[in-house]
Amino acid sequence: MRAEIISVGTEHLLGQIVDTNAPYIAKKLASLGIDVFRKTTVGDNQKRIAEVLKESLKRVDLIIITGGLGPTEDDITKEVVSEVLRERLELNKEIFTKIEERLACFKKGTKRGALKQALIPHSAKILRNKIGTAPGILLEKEKKRIFILPGVPQEMRIMMDEEVIPYLSKISKKECIKSHILKLWGIGESQVEEKIADILQNQSNPTIALLVKKEGVCIRITAKFPPDKINREIKKVEHFLRIRLGDYIYGINEESMEEVVGTLLKKKRLSVSVAESCTGGLLSHLFTNISGSSTYYQGGIVSYSNEVKSSLLKVPDKLIKEKGAVSPQVAKEMAKRVREICGSDIGIGITGIAGPTGGTPQKPVGLVYIAISTPKEEISQKFLFSGKRENIKWKASQTALDLLRKQLIKKN
Amino acid sequence: MRAEIISVGTEHLLGQIVDTNAPYIAKKLASLGIDVFRKTTVGDNQKRIAEVLKESLKRVDLIIITGGLGPTEDDITKEVVSEVLRERLELNKEIFTKIEERLACFKKGTKRGALKQALIPHSAKILRNKIGTAPGILLEKEKKRIFILPGVPQEMRIMMDEEVIPYLSKISKKECIKSHILKLWGIGESQVEEKIADILQNQSNPTIALLVKKEGVCIRITAKFPPDKINREIKKVEHFLRIRLGDYIYGINEESMEEVVGTLLKKKRLSVSVAESCTGGLLSHLFTNISGSSTYYQGGIVSYSNEVKSSLLKVPDKLIKEKGAVSPQVAKEMAKRVREICGSDIGIGITGIAGPTGGTPQKPVGLVYIAISTPKEEISQKFLFSGKRENIKWKASQTALDLLRKQLIKKN
Repeated sequence: MRAEIISVGTEHLLGQIVDTNAPYIAKKLASLGIDVFRKTTVGDNQKRIAEVLKESLKRVDLIIITGGLGPTEDDITKEVVSEVLRERLELNKEIFTKIEERLACFKKGTKRGALKQALIPHSAKILRNKIGTAPGILLEKEKKRIFILPGVPQEMRIMMDEEVIPYLSKISKKECIKSHILKLWGIGESQVEEKIADILQNQSNPTIALLVKKEGVCIRITAKFPPDKINREIKKVEHFLRIRLGDYIYGINEESMEEVVGTLLKKKRLSVSVAESCTGGLLSHLFTNISGSSTYYQGGIVSYSNEVKSSLLKVPDKLIKEKGAVSPQVAKEMAKRVREICGSDIGIGITGIAGPTGGTPQKPVGLVYIAISTPKEEISQKFLFSGKRENIKWKASQTALDLLRKQLIKKN
Repeated sequence: MRAEIISVGTEHLLGQIVDTNAPYIAKKLASLGIDVFRKTTVGDNQKRIAEVLKESLKRVDLIIITGGLGPTEDDITKEVVSEVLRERLELNKEIFTKIEERLACFKKGTKRGALKQALIPHSAKILRNKIGTAPGILLEKEKKRIFILPGVPQEMRIMMDEEVIPYLSKISKKECIKSHILKLWGIGESQVEEKIADILQNQSNPTIALLVKKEGVCIRITAKFPPDKINREIKKVEHFLRIRLGDYIYGINEESMEEVVGTLLKKKRLSVSVAESCTGGLLSHLFTNISGSSTYYQGGIVSYSNEVKSSLLKVPDKLIKEKGAVSPQVAKEMAKRVREICGSDIGIGITGIAGPTGGTPQKPVGLVYIAISTPKEEISQKFLFSGKRENIKWKASQTALDLLRKQLIKKN
């Protein structure tokens, strides 16, 4: 089955929002082995939406449209699609009542809006909207299938997962496309390329691609096989890549570094606390993003000013004066003190210069020391990160988690 | 001038990445009064890229293409565009030398890749790539202008800002489109709609639209006027909206809540410290995202466990036992203690239940108390936020910043 995705909304063409709906849909379709041929974005304009839809109908047999189902005058997707497909819009009383109930409950919206949203093309199948007012629509016309989904990402996602995917998986039975991603930290793209050059050159199915993302270098393995074979084929390639890249691989697919580290801490029944300066709370924020992190994350201190470093963390003034706040000694002391104060098994200390100001020739912006303290040992490493303030905060936090991860694996 | 944007890359159609290039370009073009008619995404496939380009050339006179300029075999944008426009590709020795120097310096890449990237269409104008190897390309053919830019966002952005925009602003002289956004917190979309219903109904130019974003309800004012009038027309509308919505408006355009609060703190020469439990470091992270925040942000404590609340923050055990860790009393105590410990003018305390577990009928997931302590007064407010763990962390942090903002404005 060939598909196209159409995103409707002038806000896209003004660059006011980033379209996360289209990639979400694309990924889901890929997992069913449905090839997406094109994605098109068009404004809230009757003539242009109609043009895009007519062109798409010539090329593919599945079209998923998002956006323009709202209650206001500029929401015209349903109206235009109905016109192109020569469908009459009819008021669906059941939907109307549901919308009215919902609006009353949230004390918002207007009757006029509800009437508009309850208009449904004559032959449409209605897709339930669990968390919003706009119902989704499926039209089946001459072997073509057209879905219209709301543009609000949360509503679209639930509808995609619970209505569209189950429907499509019934009718799509050929080879699947599946992607599997290995995530690496602490290694650059070119180094990865070098280590797996021969594998990269000899790839065909599965294919292997390198992507550089915020969360590190990612290796995407994409396979196209019948459902019963696909996982085995991916595993084979993964196996060879793991031999070459070892511990640089910290996770797969959606797994975040903090999730991986959290799982390791839980498994080993170890607790952790954090003293951070240049990362300013980000490391604690990452730890606590994980549900259940309270079983291993004890607490943290953001010692942004030197006074807090000495008053709260009890890092000796003398040490700060002699070695400087950004030094391996202070990082180690921070890690040790926070571990003791919070009564955790492991302490992490981070001190550095996030910039853009505050750098010197000896201690430039991006210089960061990260220390890990346990009752048995203390380690500290020096890093020089590039980028803007937020990038440096991010890289330092990820690297701290990665250092801890490597320590936790080593102790196996 | 009418424009279209084409994003090239199979990774888009597999949903592996979110396209941030297209909105960036769209926004820049809108600011020059250039209407973007369509955005199309197509895979790394010769036939399909050619099709999309040919269709676009029929519709518009400016096309901006991103992606597929890399050194590997699957990067074919330049090759396809040259074929469609009947341009010969020629090796540009100067570019080749630059790429080789760059690769040597970073110890990566291959000669074959460099040779490929240095192939330039015969009549092209070359756009400098300051931070990467792939040069950008401008082709001018029969009054049509085609830009090809790298897909790496950082490289594309610099090239867009420093090469494309200056070029286009010279040739685009008509009315501008400009958008101006007012950002609100602590008020729902329907309440905003109610307060400005008449303004919404009578809009034409500028137009007014409501958008619900992570950072709150946003009102987008979009005007289309000659450059000398446009700012005045926007200001007029903004003035009326501000009369209706007052302090709900916390910022404009790219301004974040933490930026606004930071500016207020700086202006009033006040310092702040944070004791947070359910937000787990996020509030400190937001404060410290702002460059120069060290002048007002003193430090923070993430008191995730009750032990840390009592050992580090010295919140009396008895209070926690009697009132519960999630209570207005503990929030106040946290705010006061962290203010005293860090020696700041203001202390913020947050305690709540981020979920998904840990809720009870009396204290459900999403219940959060936020307190602000100054030497003169202590306030605490109760909130019930909805959503997942990350949403609750986010809403609680934003609300804490907003409470502080309102306090700071009030004291004028």
